[in-house]
Amino acid sequence: MNLTMPPSKIANTMIGFEQMKRISRTSPSRIVLLVIDGLGGLPDTKTGKTELESAKKPNLNRIAKDSICGLIDPVSPGITPGSAPGHLAIFGYPPVQYHIGRGVLEALGIDVELKPGDIAARGNFCTVDDKGIITHRRAGRISTDKNTVLCRLLSDIIIEGVEASVLPVKEHRFVVILRGQGLSPDLSDSDPQQIGLAPKKVEALSPQAQRTAEIANEFVSQASSLLQGKTPANMVLLRGFSRRPDIPSIPEIYKLKPAAIAAYPMYRGLARLVGMKILPAGETMIDELNTLDRQYTKHDFFFIHFKTTDARGEDGDFQAKVEAIEELDSALSCLLSLDPEVLVVTGDHSTPAALAMHSWHPVPFMLKSKWCRPDNVAEFSERACLAGAMGRFPATEIMSLAMANALKLDKLGA
Amino acid sequence: MNLTMPPSKIANTMIGFEQMKRISRTSPSRIVLLVIDGLGGLPDTKTGKTELESAKKPNLNRIAKDSICGLIDPVSPGITPGSAPGHLAIFGYPPVQYHIGRGVLEALGIDVELKPGDIAARGNFCTVDDKGIITHRRAGRISTDKNTVLCRLLSDIIIEGVEASVLPVKEHRFVVILRGQGLSPDLSDSDPQQIGLAPKKVEALSPQAQRTAEIANEFVSQASSLLQGKTPANMVLLRGFSRRPDIPSIPEIYKLKPAAIAAYPMYRGLARLVGMKILPAGETMIDELNTLDRQYTKHDFFFIHFKTTDARGEDGDFQAKVEAIEELDSALSCLLSLDPEVLVVTGDHSTPAALAMHSWHPVPFMLKSKWCRPDNVAEFSERACLAGAMGRFPATEIMSLAMANALKLDKLGA
Repeated sequence: MNLTMPPSKIANTMIGFEQMKRISRTSPSRIVLLVIDGLGGLPDTKTGKTELESAKKPNLNRIAKDSICGLIDPVSPGITPGSAPGHLAIFGYPPVQYHIGRGVLEALGIDVELKPGDIAARGNFCTVDDKGIITHRRAGRISTDKNTVLCRLLSDIIIEGVEASVLPVKEHRFVVILRGQGLSPDLSDSDPQQIGLAPKKVEALSPQAQRTAEIANEFVSQASSLLQGKTPANMVLLRGFSRRPDIPSIPEIYKLKPAAIAAYPMYRGLARLVGMKILPAGETMIDELNTLDRQYTKHDFFFIHFKTTDARGEDGDFQAKVEAIEELDSALSCLLSLDPEVLVVTGDHSTPAALAMHSWHPVPFMLKSKWCRPDNVAEFSERACLAGAMGRFPATEIMSLAMANALKLDKLGA
Repeated sequence: MNLTMPPSKIANTMIGFEQMKRISRTSPSRIVLLVIDGLGGLPDTKTGKTELESAKKPNLNRIAKDSICGLIDPVSPGITPGSAPGHLAIFGYPPVQYHIGRGVLEALGIDVELKPGDIAARGNFCTVDDKGIITHRRAGRISTDKNTVLCRLLSDIIIEGVEASVLPVKEHRFVVILRGQGLSPDLSDSDPQQIGLAPKKVEALSPQAQRTAEIANEFVSQASSLLQGKTPANMVLLRGFSRRPDIPSIPEIYKLKPAAIAAYPMYRGLARLVGMKILPAGETMIDELNTLDRQYTKHDFFFIHFKTTDARGEDGDFQAKVEAIEELDSALSCLLSLDPEVLVVTGDHSTPAALAMHSWHPVPFMLKSKWCRPDNVAEFSERACLAGAMGRFPATEIMSLAMANALKLDKLGA
């Protein structure tokens, strides 16, 4: 034990995954985790109330009465999480440590399953002039149909010892996946992120990435030839070379049999990454909860994702976000009738309509169970949850709290 | 990147022991730390009140009025601590880092002092059939008297280069202590933890434990011979090989002269481990407080342990736990008349009668001193403490708070 390096107190009071594996156990109880995307908001300047405070939400309030409440920080105070860190934190993974690269995230977003050694990069179709200088980084946002045709064209690229897949995303965006032996993601971007420059050579950021850098540059060179004359999409820009993180799975850590019900591909991708089975989600919250009802006996952990709150927040539409919360609330009756042993309701981050983007504000949280020791909070909102018994806490602690309330954890030490 | 241990979030804002050594100083003021074992509870389904909320506790409430209050997490949210992690956290030691093995804990529990190199293991007398298969892991819970006779028999075991002590605990339980040069605790258990199997060979879990594994197996082999025909206790099972952790002491870190008053051996053992002097405790809380009164001028830190609350919680007897709290409360007059400069009252974990076991729920905390800046909390209970100025916080922060309130800490930096 090294006394010169201060043993962090909080660090060492946090349980690691290895310890969690030792104390977790299976039991018949079920945990339902409802993630309301972009849940937290900011007050309307006229009413002084946030979206959540303005919404009629009898079901959410009823749950709050029987719950232990609080506010989560997905990363830490002041840090605005993207969707990946926000969800990873809720799933129990310290989001700074378990970084998901841009390329991998883009692949997850189109329901592509990555193998452990695969390298994924985010691609843009762009426009270059006859001197090779970028004049438009998004090729004028070509149509997704056009994108699909061009990706098919790029699938003619042949590089020895590696299989390159090129998959369309939306408008000018695509994903390249390189599959082969001994590839490394330690690569610089070819995308200079501004116009007036030529695309950069991909460079190896570590010695073992040398061959992969050559492969990436060969890919760009062949793509450039194949796209010649296809203006405005006559060149490609690559960034965010990355590999699926080596992430211990939820079944492995918690001995759970988890399932995800999410209508959007990226959330399904994140759920698959941590070992959840993907169930059909349909289009609406009612569809998702019908799936829950049908599959209820087959799993002991369900992640349910509701997207509309975030989308309306990003639109900057306060009233539409209020309505999204009300739509969700009325759908919850079905969930309440299942009465899971542990019900967690929270969000992956805040998306205040006033900012029209993700934000750093902490997110309301509640957990209802027979054993939760309820506090005095009787409303589910940013301000009411301030008085909750969880106080303000890191989202990464949600999983152990849910496991404890499901009586799925043995005690630590004698 | 070590993917198995999530990194700390708050680590870098916490003071380490080396820094604490530099800023701690002696002063005439006294700190009294009263640990009410298993203090926290859960609401009764009829009254909606916890054990602590149901008890008449004028003294505890009076202290709360003049205190700074809050709720502690001994480990982290959702994690149920055993008695050792619960106490180590209160004493300022990150309990996950300062792990105490089963064998050491058992030795502490019978007031045996372990030397730094000693290896302790928990033993069970068990029953095996004529093929050596375990038919009863506890030998039908033989009497403690019988156990004592058998331990004396096993003290005939002779192994070269090592001194083996065999000490009875209770019923079928005993402790083996191996003392000698170069022993290692990196050993697997011989106890397969189920019947229908033969006891396992003890295996070295690291190369340097090879010789100790041979010694442990030789011990088991000789024990088996000596116990032949002594049915039902005709074999032994060993587990939890461990060594006293290398733990910086409270006198060393805080320059305190600490004493412990605890009626149960395990708590005395834990206190001795962190450098406290053990004072005679007697049987009741009144006895303990009489000791405090008599020895009050001889120490500047007193740990006082009250066990009954935990025992009645583990019995699942809500009313008896309420009465234990009331018994404690009425004994406190004597403590209040001493009026220590700093009085801390908390528990090592919750033991709700509703669960009849240790639980993960945070534990009420209060600290009274002339300098504490009291909050508005006027009742000592789970829900009242939620509104306290300490909020919810890690138990490892108690020691620095107590030291500060005793004016025993210099400022950090210029």
